[in-house]
Amino acid sequence: MLKTIDRMIAGFRSFKAAYYEQRPERVMTLVEGSQSPEVVLIACSDSRVDPAILTNAEPGELFVVRNVAALVPPFENDGRYHGTSAALEYAVRDLKVSDAVILSHSNCGGVKALVAARNGSVSDRTFINPWMSLMGECATDADPDVVSKESLKRSLANLRTFPFVQAAEAAGYLRLHGWWFDMKAGVLYALNEKTGEFEARA
Amino acid sequence: MLKTIDRMIAGFRSFKAAYYEQRPERVMTLVEGSQSPEVVLIACSDSRVDPAILTNAEPGELFVVRNVAALVPPFENDGRYHGTSAALEYAVRDLKVSDAVILSHSNCGGVKALVAARNGSVSDRTFINPWMSLMGECATDADPDVVSKESLKRSLANLRTFPFVQAAEAAGYLRLHGWWFDMKAGVLYALNEKTGEFEARA
Amino acid sequence: MLKTIDRMIAGFRSFKAAYYEQRPERVMTLVEGSQSPEVVLIACSDSRVDPAILTNAEPGELFVVRNVAALVPPFENDGRYHGTSAALEYAVRDLKVSDAVILSHSNCGGVKALVAARNGSVSDRTFINPWMSLMGECATDADPDVVSKESLKRSLANLRTFPFVQAAEAAGYLRLHGWWFDMKAGVLYALNEKTGEFEARA
Amino acid sequence: MLKTIDRMIAGFRSFKAAYYEQRPERVMTLVEGSQSPEVVLIACSDSRVDPAILTNAEPGELFVVRNVAALVPPFENDGRYHGTSAALEYAVRDLKVSDAVILSHSNCGGVKALVAARNGSVSDRTFINPWMSLMGECATDADPDVVSKESLKRSLANLRTFPFVQAAEAAGYLRLHGWWFDMKAGVLYALNEKTGEFEARA
Repeated sequence: MLKTIDRMIAGFRSFKAAYYEQRPERVMTLVEGSQSPEVVLIACSDSRVDPAILTNAEPGELFVVRNVAALVPPFENDGRYHGTSAALEYAVRDLKVSDAVILSHSNCGGVKALVAARNGSVSDRTFINPWMSLMGECATDADPDVVSKESLKRSLANLRTFPFVQAAEAAGYLRLHGWWFDMKAGVLYALNEKTGEFEARA
Repeated sequence: MLKTIDRMIAGFRSFKAAYYEQRPERVMTLVEGSQSPEVVLIACSDSRVDPAILTNAEPGELFVVRNVAALVPPFENDGRYHGTSAALEYAVRDLKVSDAVILSHSNCGGVKALVAARNGSVSDRTFINPWMSLMGECATDADPDVVSKESLKRSLANLRTFPFVQAAEAAGYLRLHGWWFDMKAGVLYALNEKTGEFEARA
Repeated sequence: MLKTIDRMIAGFRSFKAAYYEQRPERVMTLVEGSQSPEVVLIACSDSRVDPAILTNAEPGELFVVRNVAALVPPFENDGRYHGTSAALEYAVRDLKVSDAVILSHSNCGGVKALVAARNGSVSDRTFINPWMSLMGECATDADPDVVSKESLKRSLANLRTFPFVQAAEAAGYLRLHGWWFDMKAGVLYALNEKTGEFEARA
Repeated sequence: MLKTIDRMIAGFRSFKAAYYEQRPERVMTLVEGSQSPEVVLIACSDSRVDPAILTNAEPGELFVVRNVAALVPPFENDGRYHGTSAALEYAVRDLKVSDAVILSHSNCGGVKALVAARNGSVSDRTFINPWMSLMGECATDADPDVVSKESLKRSLANLRTFPFVQAAEAAGYLRLHGWWFDMKAGVLYALNEKTGEFEARA
C-alpha cells in the first residue's frame, strides 16, 4: 500500500501536467500576477472536509484558513502571534474579499476531543484544551454536533469583534456566512442569522 | 459573471453527487468512522496553492493547517490560544500521523507584505506584522523567495521545539518534510536537511 | 495557444500520474484481468457530449460505441463490416452487459447535416448521407431535435432486431435505455417506452 | 453495490453541477454555437481505455469514433452503412479537423477474441468475425499485442485510402497519428512512420 506522502508527490505530478502543461491558461494569470480571491474561508483541519474538494474549487478562488474546529478567536490586540487573526486581517484589508465563510461540520474529531477533555478523559494536552476553550459555554452540551453549531455562531460573533470586519460589513463590502456540513447525510447548511436556524442549501 | 460564493454552492452539489451518490464507497468508511490521516500538512492560506488541488488529494488523506506563509511558531506553553500549535498537537498526539509536511511557495503575497512592512510601506497592521515577525531575521533579504525558503527552515526548527514532535521524531514515528513550490515554474522542491539544498522532486 | 494534440499528451501524463502512480489500486484489477463493464453505451461522436465526461465515469465502467448521431443499424447478416453491430454483439454475447444505453442529444451537428442534405444543400458526401439515412422517415421533420428524438426510438427498435438482444431482453438479462441530453438546458431525459415520452432524470 | 446505470445518473448530476451551474463559461460557447474540435480520434470500445479519461479531455476537444479494436475499414463506395467512414468523412470534410489519431492498446479483449476465433474456439459470431477480419494477415501472430500494433499500421494505411484524407494530408491540412497504449505499463507510444517503431511519448 502506497504511503500518503508518496501519493502526494505523484498527485503533484498529475496537477502539474494538468495545469501547467495541458491547460496553462488556467493558472498563468494567477502565477504571473497576484491572487485576488473573493472569499476567505475559515475551515476545519479535519482531513475529511477539505474545502477545495467540498466546493470543487479551482486555484485562485479561496483564501483558506484551517485550524482545529474552524474557530475564530476574538480580537486581541496584544502584539502576540495570532495566526487566524493575521489571515483574516490580510484577507479583509489587503485582499479585500467580499465574502467570509466559516465552515464547520458534524462528526468533528476536535469537538469530540473537547467534549472528552471536559469529561476529564484527556487531561494533558498543552494546546488543544486552551484552543478548544474558545468554544466557551457552548461546549457543555453532550452532543458534539450541537456544540459544533453553537460554536459556529460564537465564531461569527468573534469575527465581528475585529474592527476591520465590522467596518467592512457595515459598509456593505463584506458579507459573513456560517456554513455547516452534515458529513453523514452529505448536506450543506447555511445559518440564517435572523432566525438562528440552519437551512439546507445543497 | 458568477460570484465565487455561488460557485461554491454549485461545486458542493457536484461534490455531493460524485461522492455521496455516485461513489459512496469512497466516503462511507470515513463518514461512519473517524479520520485517520497519515499526514499533517502546514500550508499557506494563499488561494493559488491549495494543497488538495496541488496534490490531487482525496477526502481523508491530509490533516491541513493553513495560515499566512505556512509558518510554525515556536513552542510557547502559556495557556493562550495557539491555533497552529493546537492542530499540531492534535495531529501528532491524537491522530498519530507519520509525516509532517511544511509547504511554502514562491510569489507569496504574505511574504511580500512582510518585506513591504519591513520597508515601512504598510505600518498599521495589527496582526500580520507580529505574525510575520515569526520569520525573524530571514526576513531581511530583499528577495521574497529567499525569505520564503529561509522561513521554511525556521519553521522546521520551530516544529522541533515541540516536545511531542521531538519525541515522535526521535522514536522514528514521525518524519518531517520541508517542501517549496515554485509557482512560476510549476516545480515542487524538497529540502534536503543534510545539505540545506532544495531538490526538485516533481 | 496549445494545440489539442499536445494537450492530449500532457493530459495523458496527468492521467498516468493520477491512476498509475498515485492510486494504482483503481486500475490494477482492470489492467491485470479483463474488462467486465455492466453497460454498453451507444453515443454520438460529437465532441461536446463525451459520455465519460457527462457521466463522470471511471475506467472499466462503460463499453462505448460512438458514431455520428448515435445510430444503431438494423440486423444485417451479410458477412460485411458492421462496426456498431460487432460492438453490440461483443458487448451482449461476450461481455454479457446488463444494460444497453443509446444516448443522443440536442443540437446534433450530424442531424443538422442530415437535414441540410435533405434540403439539397450538401450533396457530395459519400458516407454521411447513407449513414444518416438510417434515421429514415423521422428525418423529414424540420426541427433537428425532433429528428434526433425520433431517431433514438428507431435505433431502439433496430437494436431489438438483433436476435441476441431480443433473447437477452426477453430473458431479463438485458435492459434497454434511450437517453436524450438537452445540451442547452443541461438536462438528461430518459425515454419512457410505455408512453413514448421523454422524462427528465437529472 | 450501486449499479453502473445508477452511477451514470448520479455522475451526470455531478457533471451538470460542475459545468452548467458552477463554471458555465466552460460550456456556454460550445452549447450556443457548434463544435469545432481539432482532433478526430478513432479509439477502441474497451471500457478500460476511455479516451477522454486517458487524455484528461474537456468537452469540445475530441471528435471520437469508438469501435471494437479501433479499426478503420478501407474506402468502400457502395452506398451502404459505414459508421466509421461516415464519421471520418464528417470530421475531415465538415469539421476540418487538423489531426486524426488512431489509438489502440495492449490487452485488447477484441483482439484476443479475434485470435481465439482464428483458433476456432468461438465460431458462431455473426459480426465480430467479419469486423475483426479487417485486421487481415496481421492477425495471424499469436501475441495479441503484436496483432494490435500491426493492425494499427493497417488502419493507418486504410485511412489513407479515403480520397478526402489523402487530399487533406497531401495539402498539409491533416496530420495522421498512430498511438498505442500499453495498459499494463501505463505508457503511451506513438508510431514513427518513418522507422515503423513505436516510441514512448509519455
